[in-house]
Amino acid sequence: MKSGKGRPVLVFDFGGTKLAAGVVDAEGGRVLSFVRVPTPAGQGASGSIDAIARSGKQALETAGVGMDELHGGIGISFGGPVSRDRRTVLRSMHVEAWDSIDLPDRIAALFDRPAFMDNDANAAALGEWAYGAGKGAENLLYVQISTGIGAGLIVQGKVYRGSGLAGELGHITVLADGPLCSCGKRGCLEGLAAGWAIARDGRALLENGGSSRLGELSDHRAERIDAEMVLRASQEGDPGSLAMVERALRYLAIGIANAVCLLDPDVVVIGGGVSRARPVVQGILEPALDEFLPAMFRGRVRLAFSELEGLETLLGAALLAQGY
Amino acid sequence: MKSGKGRPVLVFDFGGTKLAAGVVDAEGGRVLSFVRVPTPAGQGASGSIDAIARSGKQALETAGVGMDELHGGIGISFGGPVSRDRRTVLRSMHVEAWDSIDLPDRIAALFDRPAFMDNDANAAALGEWAYGAGKGAENLLYVQISTGIGAGLIVQGKVYRGSGLAGELGHITVLADGPLCSCGKRGCLEGLAAGWAIARDGRALLENGGSSRLGELSDHRAERIDAEMVLRASQEGDPGSLAMVERALRYLAIGIANAVCLLDPDVVVIGGGVSRARPVVQGILEPALDEFLPAMFRGRVRLAFSELEGLETLLGAALLAQGY
Repeated sequence: MKSGKGRPVLVFDFGGTKLAAGVVDAEGGRVLSFVRVPTPAGQGASGSIDAIARSGKQALETAGVGMDELHGGIGISFGGPVSRDRRTVLRSMHVEAWDSIDLPDRIAALFDRPAFMDNDANAAALGEWAYGAGKGAENLLYVQISTGIGAGLIVQGKVYRGSGLAGELGHITVLADGPLCSCGKRGCLEGLAAGWAIARDGRALLENGGSSRLGELSDHRAERIDAEMVLRASQEGDPGSLAMVERALRYLAIGIANAVCLLDPDVVVIGGGVSRARPVVQGILEPALDEFLPAMFRGRVRLAFSELEGLETLLGAALLAQGY
Repeated sequence: MKSGKGRPVLVFDFGGTKLAAGVVDAEGGRVLSFVRVPTPAGQGASGSIDAIARSGKQALETAGVGMDELHGGIGISFGGPVSRDRRTVLRSMHVEAWDSIDLPDRIAALFDRPAFMDNDANAAALGEWAYGAGKGAENLLYVQISTGIGAGLIVQGKVYRGSGLAGELGHITVLADGPLCSCGKRGCLEGLAAGWAIARDGRALLENGGSSRLGELSDHRAERIDAEMVLRASQEGDPGSLAMVERALRYLAIGIANAVCLLDPDVVVIGGGVSRARPVVQGILEPALDEFLPAMFRGRVRLAFSELEGLETLLGAALLAQGY
């Protein structure tokens, strides 16, 4: 029983399109098992609750951990804003019928132990701070660049939540009168640098004949283009894609530099899907960050990339379960 | 002796051009006395140290408080960045020969009690949180708009300092490739909305024949124009000045909205010289802030204006003296 299970904690991670359940050894910071399934479509919240019950049980079986061996509560990372008391989902950006659901209480009832939730950026920030690229930092800023852009802030070993919505880096204005964002206002960082914005610009690039490589990769069907494809084309040296990615990453550098000016963290950890194209992202982001930081901040903050390979939210959820 | 002195604390406030000493009743949050003198010019740090000794003694005499009646340590607000341990002045933006001075130790030696220092934005944030417009807030953002722009952040009753330089709101980029800032980079909020930028733009406005009212107020001598004059002209309805102030305040709104997205404070307190032109500032800033905040933040944060009439740094310094 002691053989490598450490202190097992049951965790859940609700992404935009996928739901994951896992068992994490909170002592060693390892994921012992995880099960990832598509969020059931068109079945509302109750369909998801069934999927949660099944996945949780599977994760426990795979890890060989019995319910009676679990430590503490259950940790939940949710891909969207949660209420100030973190007992309710405020709104899902991606999944229907998720508004105002008391997710922790429902999961607590399923597994008969208390459950604790936070948004995915805060969970990932905790994961990086405890087990990842930001280990040992006093103040850490985690920046998540995937379909959307979010941030999580750890201040002296605790998540800083403000009145509950802190860390909305994606919706700071970096270009007055810039493109319309999904949030309804103009010039947000998300609308210039998030995965959905890069995909949108990639499609426009193809339609305007600006990239033959994107045409090859997408079989000339613009609707197939996503951020990953644009990043791949730019890494291969496609000039149109590269110019576009450069522009997006320069705005991202403005956003991060702005957050650094306000928060002066020891370390900034970059995570999320887009960040996994690390060579091209780092090569552009690092010098741009220096450009947009005032002299007294340059060389002061450490820029690190997540090496937890997408498991940072599950790992962080294990800390949420312990009351972080 | 008990008659209204409460818990008297000796405090100092080093501004750009002026030095103030005061005695604050830290219990009631009242300034019992204060003495303000010009920073001695051309005499380096030692000239200032003499002035500190004289002013401190005067402040004590005026308040009728003996050295033996003082409570706790001495509080110091400094108008520029200080070191991470807050024992040394990093750099004065305005006064020569102030770099790397161990100001708290020098003042401690003069008055034979421990002295505690922080930058003026953090001191003012504490003053507003304890005694002013932000009383009772859990998380407070103080925005100082005077010659420069700075910010102080109170998180759950403590100053958040990051690695020592947190709160540099003046140097976030709000307009890529915008005007050159005093810090050497382009597009900083300061270069678009601080007192010095408003004065610079006012001079240009006069020189380009864009404001007859500014001509009258300055006797047609551009070098006489300062931010106060431009704000006055705009409050009187001078179209050129008003358009200019509007532009500056819209960028200020972007900066504040960006900080709110990241920090989600309960209250934002606006202070500093420029903010004292409250009717025009508030009339433009409030709607612009709504415009640059994502929907989920609108109506959530309380915008307040300092009513401590420039005494917020002295009052906050009294809290610094108590270890905040």
